[in-house]
Amino acid sequence: MAEKTGIGTNIVCQIGLVVKDIEKSKKAYADVFGLPEPDVMETNPETGKPVYRGERTWAKAKLAFFDMGQVQIELIEPVGEPSTWKEALDAQGEGFHHIAFMVKGTDDVVAYLEGKGGTLVQQGHYTGGMYSYVDMPSLHLVLELLENFNE
Amino acid sequence: MAEKTGIGTNIVCQIGLVVKDIEKSKKAYADVFGLPEPDVMETNPETGKPVYRGERTWAKAKLAFFDMGQVQIELIEPVGEPSTWKEALDAQGEGFHHIAFMVKGTDDVVAYLEGKGGTLVQQGHYTGGMYSYVDMPSLHLVLELLENFNE
Repeated sequence: MAEKTGIGTNIVCQIGLVVKDIEKSKKAYADVFGLPEPDVMETNPETGKPVYRGERTWAKAKLAFFDMGQVQIELIEPVGEPSTWKEALDAQGEGFHHIAFMVKGTDDVVAYLEGKGGTLVQQGHYTGGMYSYVDMPSLHLVLELLENFNE
Repeated sequence: MAEKTGIGTNIVCQIGLVVKDIEKSKKAYADVFGLPEPDVMETNPETGKPVYRGERTWAKAKLAFFDMGQVQIELIEPVGEPSTWKEALDAQGEGFHHIAFMVKGTDDVVAYLEGKGGTLVQQGHYTGGMYSYVDMPSLHLVLELLENFNE
């Protein structure tokens, strides 16, 4: 077991990728892994109130999820800008974007990661919870913190 | 449950990253997640007989592993070249390299993935098993297939 640090967990729950065409990519994943094709959902910037690098944004994303054991693969097609998703797609092309962890007390976890050199890149809400993307240069990764409020 | 396709699994078991300085990176991972610092091991090209893009290579890698639940994070520092690790580090810098799956019957799985547009990039052995990296453009990922012979 891990010692509890400020992140409170070491269980990776999601691997996120940015893609240009979510319909095409989800068909490829379903085909290669023999999984049902998930529905595509779209984030709602009215209710989600995303903030990107300190500024309110109306960017959206189309999302599709595949269960791959403990880990979920999330496909993300950016819609509009600015967002961490569009930024990553423009900078690196299609592919890996983040790994995610379920946390409690988002503000404290973000502060802990900022103390380790992290930068809060984007934050917003979804139904029942909130997400925060923290760029961690020392880990060579963006971490997504997911917090569900009713669990 | 997933329908069995030619890959035979949809359970992600590893997330691999390439790094420039494995000692520095493993300290950062141990620190952020509160995990013990793992020993660093080095691949052995004499016994591992790695083949990179169809040619025998004597490139090596330093490796360190962290258990993050079902998923292991593997840090990879390329030593020498050519290898998929050095190629990725040169092309994209430090960060994400692959996700891995445990398979049975590597040759059949590689052939299946080649039939889905994949390219076998590198293959080699480790004590008790073998690994194969298959670039899958339709998934925007490199998949690593791990096969342990005595399980």
